[in-house]
Amino acid sequence: MTYCLGILLDEGLLLMADTRTNAGVDNISSYQKLHCLERTPDREIYAACCGSLSATQAVLSLVAEGVGRKGEGPGRSLPEAVSMFRCAQIVGEAVRSANRALGEALEPEKARGTTCLLLGGRIGSEPPRLFQIYAEGNFIECKADVPFLQIGETKYGRPILDRVINRTTPLAAAVKIGFLSFDSAMRSNLSVARPIDLMVMPADARAPTLSKRIENDDAYFNDLSSRWSSLLFDATQAIPDPAFMSQVEVPRPLAVVSDIRA
Amino acid sequence: MTYCLGILLDEGLLLMADTRTNAGVDNISSYQKLHCLERTPDREIYAACCGSLSATQAVLSLVAEGVGRKGEGPGRSLPEAVSMFRCAQIVGEAVRSANRALGEALEPEKARGTTCLLLGGRIGSEPPRLFQIYAEGNFIECKADVPFLQIGETKYGRPILDRVINRTTPLAAAVKIGFLSFDSAMRSNLSVARPIDLMVMPADARAPTLSKRIENDDAYFNDLSSRWSSLLFDATQAIPDPAFMSQVEVPRPLAVVSDIRA
Repeated sequence: MTYCLGILLDEGLLLMADTRTNAGVDNISSYQKLHCLERTPDREIYAACCGSLSATQAVLSLVAEGVGRKGEGPGRSLPEAVSMFRCAQIVGEAVRSANRALGEALEPEKARGTTCLLLGGRIGSEPPRLFQIYAEGNFIECKADVPFLQIGETKYGRPILDRVINRTTPLAAAVKIGFLSFDSAMRSNLSVARPIDLMVMPADARAPTLSKRIENDDAYFNDLSSRWSSLLFDATQAIPDPAFMSQVEVPRPLAVVSDIRA
Repeated sequence: MTYCLGILLDEGLLLMADTRTNAGVDNISSYQKLHCLERTPDREIYAACCGSLSATQAVLSLVAEGVGRKGEGPGRSLPEAVSMFRCAQIVGEAVRSANRALGEALEPEKARGTTCLLLGGRIGSEPPRLFQIYAEGNFIECKADVPFLQIGETKYGRPILDRVINRTTPLAAAVKIGFLSFDSAMRSNLSVARPIDLMVMPADARAPTLSKRIENDDAYFNDLSSRWSSLLFDATQAIPDPAFMSQVEVPRPLAVVSDIRA
């Protein structure tokens, strides 16, 4: 499994991806899943990929070489695309092609494998845009009502996003909340793990993009994780117990009950 | 889908289950999933069920009528079982039988359906015990290292349990934390919904068991849900932003960026 998260805010775009790959619990490895597809003065395009590693790598190569024939017409390769929408079409085509080839290869084994991805970036001085490209190659764009997109092992890390993120969340706070979302996923699922790759693209095209890897021993992340446990505990304490529980007689002394159980 | 949660603590046992059933988003209904299987002076046994409603109802009827022939030997029905382990065997047998019959019925349609459940209760003055019975009828018992079991839509509601619950958590606090876990699941997944049924069994067999339904308009639950959102936000604020984000230039004024986007 994998966990990738994209958040699109007034202040900018961020993409995060873990790096764990596994083919069974006895075959785990670490591969980069957040890739820079294009970085020139007029465009920066990133993808966070989830699914079959062979299909993902095929997508990256197809996109790098140009989907269809390069120069065939406008918008067949990322350097030529006139908008992020055209980039999503090109990458979607590569995803569909790679997944179709993998499906044919696996069919005799009755096995299945696909890749899908989050695509984010900007062309020129436009604000960043964020897309989720499905395994079939079609895609949706992130909009203000729900300013984030997730792929992979999404559920453990979703409640904090649902509650806390909105379009006006500051970029630095969103990075922190994204880390909390990853921490929840990693705590409950072994198939998501550090290092985490991070890309932060401010809305202002003149401000440089930040790329960073959060390593296994990252002190800030470790501190965030342990603070979060105690903050969550404190938060539960701040909510009053249900009044109906006052009817329930709890056993005393507790130590004796533990002893009986042991 | 469904969400059922069992928590086994030094102070006692609790079981919670939502009541939403659905066969597609255009066919939703409300059915009780937390059932009292046996309640006599010397035993109280409850089940929280997840999966095919027809298989669940078959399990309840098979258990009520006695699995195999009643009186065939000791432990073939819940009133005769000498331990909670024997109860889990009996209920497991009913689960296997109901799932096998449903599988045969659905096979021509290439459809699948099963039920599984959490079984909790006590025999005599023993402390309560909690089991998870799989669709195949085998089962595991809840032990101190991870003092809870979940079935159904488990992932959204798991992070709060992983962080906050341990064997010594007070029963009243565990009810509150269980509600928070349900609230996370309900917020992210339409197939989990109130009313929530709740059973609280204190470890001391002399203390009465509490059964309660949390309705759609329950004031305590509504308050807990809105408090939790603001407590989570406050908790994220209490963690410092990552130092590396000070390098990232955020656009100013923000209002102008919003206008460009709109």
